[in-house]
Amino acid sequence: MNGHISDEYAGYLRTEKYDKEPYRRKEFIINCEKPFNAETRPDLLPRSFYVPNDLFFVRNHAPVPVLKSEEEFRLRVEGIVAFPLLLSLQDLKTKFRKHTVTAVLQCAGNRRTEMSRIKPIQGVPWLHGAAGNAVWSGVLLKDVLMAAGVYPNKAEHVEFEGADLPPEEDNRRGYLASIPLKKALDEGEEVLLAYEMNGEVLPRDHGYPLRAIVPGFVGARSVKWLSRIICKMDSSDGFFMTKDYKYLPSSMDFENVDWTSTPPIMNLSVQCAICDPMPNTKLSQGPYKIRGYALTGKGEHIMRVELSVNGSKEWQEAKLIKGEKIANREIPKRITAGIKDWSWVLWELVVDIKPPMIITARAIDSACNTQPEVPLWNLRGVMNNSWHKINILPLSSAL
Amino acid sequence: MNGHISDEYAGYLRTEKYDKEPYRRKEFIINCEKPFNAETRPDLLPRSFYVPNDLFFVRNHAPVPVLKSEEEFRLRVEGIVAFPLLLSLQDLKTKFRKHTVTAVLQCAGNRRTEMSRIKPIQGVPWLHGAAGNAVWSGVLLKDVLMAAGVYPNKAEHVEFEGADLPPEEDNRRGYLASIPLKKALDEGEEVLLAYEMNGEVLPRDHGYPLRAIVPGFVGARSVKWLSRIICKMDSSDGFFMTKDYKYLPSSMDFENVDWTSTPPIMNLSVQCAICDPMPNTKLSQGPYKIRGYALTGKGEHIMRVELSVNGSKEWQEAKLIKGEKIANREIPKRITAGIKDWSWVLWELVVDIKPPMIITARAIDSACNTQPEVPLWNLRGVMNNSWHKINILPLSSAL
Repeated sequence: MNGHISDEYAGYLRTEKYDKEPYRRKEFIINCEKPFNAETRPDLLPRSFYVPNDLFFVRNHAPVPVLKSEEEFRLRVEGIVAFPLLLSLQDLKTKFRKHTVTAVLQCAGNRRTEMSRIKPIQGVPWLHGAAGNAVWSGVLLKDVLMAAGVYPNKAEHVEFEGADLPPEEDNRRGYLASIPLKKALDEGEEVLLAYEMNGEVLPRDHGYPLRAIVPGFVGARSVKWLSRIICKMDSSDGFFMTKDYKYLPSSMDFENVDWTSTPPIMNLSVQCAICDPMPNTKLSQGPYKIRGYALTGKGEHIMRVELSVNGSKEWQEAKLIKGEKIANREIPKRITAGIKDWSWVLWELVVDIKPPMIITARAIDSACNTQPEVPLWNLRGVMNNSWHKINILPLSSAL
Repeated sequence: MNGHISDEYAGYLRTEKYDKEPYRRKEFIINCEKPFNAETRPDLLPRSFYVPNDLFFVRNHAPVPVLKSEEEFRLRVEGIVAFPLLLSLQDLKTKFRKHTVTAVLQCAGNRRTEMSRIKPIQGVPWLHGAAGNAVWSGVLLKDVLMAAGVYPNKAEHVEFEGADLPPEEDNRRGYLASIPLKKALDEGEEVLLAYEMNGEVLPRDHGYPLRAIVPGFVGARSVKWLSRIICKMDSSDGFFMTKDYKYLPSSMDFENVDWTSTPPIMNLSVQCAICDPMPNTKLSQGPYKIRGYALTGKGEHIMRVELSVNGSKEWQEAKLIKGEKIANREIPKRITAGIKDWSWVLWELVVDIKPPMIITARAIDSACNTQPEVPLWNLRGVMNNSWHKINILPLSSAL
């Protein structure tokens, strides 16, 4: 065993060094090397309804932990439960029914770079590529919690612990986050313990061999390298629940911050981004197919995406691309009957390009929520869902 | 019987004339006499957490139907059910458990007047007083549907029919609206058939003796003078589901409207209004306690209300007034555990008045949704939840 592998846990060799990182593709925009934080090049996103595993954005807080072997992996389920469980990957795959859900993940910090133009923000400088759609397969968290005999009147939160070692967490805990037990136990919310991503084995950067997938919540709650599930009375007091991933008032900075003033972020808000063309692209006059994505939380779907090419004076509707691509669900007809939708939509619209110009996009979801025109600046630079505006520049005449 | 009473139905004498209207207080702002549409004077709203019954906004589409006697009232429950029911008021009060919920109602057209400054809109010219909070008591719709043996795999929508006679509905139907059956059957959504409002008998203007209360949805779905409940495969094709109460694209007007392009509005979006002072109030320099309300849908709660007194450059947090007033529920500590909240919040903040000035208010809800800065104009003038801006004028020096 290498000296830099610090200890063993749940079948992992946990490490604080970066010499066992997985292979990554060159197409990523790397915002931080250690820990690895990389987004999909935004113009690649609308090329397919599901983002390929090796192009899906990666948000790590520590080195990727090293699993010794699939046989040695163990998931603990404990806390306020009647029957604490210690489950192998084989247990999960054979003793519980398999469930598949299409769900978008988005980092709470997606589009931070735009927000930080108002006032600088510390944090990973994400553009608008920290979002992606995938099909996830695994077991329903509900089924595992029922097998453990959770006490729903005593426990109110489910805490997830990863096998990674973020320096921010105390006492050598892994990355910690919790969700309300009510969400976990509601089958319609489809909270998963996932071992497959887009039909393949979960990649190491995405939590191999097991991660939580919490549809409709920010990515920070879909804990990777899941090793422990703890049913608790209170929400997790981990760093990323109490000192980060909070949508603080714009009046707070590091001088006067009161972390207790604001609850941890859970739900995704309505979001929309122009992916193709990229900002500041040089284009010639003429028609161009603008493409992007839109997403929202709470199981709602995107009702409409609108573009403006004349400074928000007039808006045209983009075509939403969904239908058969939503994992064989017939969403449109039945959506008002209360079926939940955790997927993003892709959209496109041919507009007449006359550079220099600004193209603006905004979305409205099925709960009639929409987006603010400008970012609501906050200390952690999270939840920027302002109208997306990109510059288009003229081709130089010399070209 | 009077000649102008047109026929009998479910214990009512249904009328198309306006000579049996109830007494109404002079404090209302009346936006239309026939049918009666009146809002609470906005500056009265923050005076109490529950709006008094006789000051609660009224949105009628026809004359108030006249109930002959409580004994003669009948509610039909039919459609895709095993056991159609015909229930008296006594049946509802004695055969089902009583349930009480605090819920805000808001007309989809609240704040239409502000939106119509962008481009004129036909419709009741509501200011920001078409919203109100109340305690509603009655029976859970779920319990009644279970008693009727609803077929959840066949029916997907629940249609409500009122005993009133809006000229827009075909075939002498009452006012029609439907909600997804899934919402109706989810006990946590607390959909009621209500016979009490703020502990009193439901007033005639609010649906005496029985109305639907659909927490978290726009008022248009909380059908008054409820006389019929129909479990259906499809959503209601009534006028107010198919030709009104739709959040159409801003590009559509009466020349090019496609009503099928957009689903009927269901959920409330995040909303915030400054109630005291009223717009264009003349005030002297000095401190003034600004007061208002904020609300949202989906069972979320208002996380924050912010005010700006310098043209949206800086924002101060208002104090939210809730806690013990929310019908004895302890919301704050447990809210992240998934308890739903259907109530508005009142808020206040003392600011330094230096007229002339503009005061702006905005809210963020617990799902991180927020409001657009300017209204998203639409043909029906609905769902205006833009930042609320009011002018404050100087006292004339002559005074």
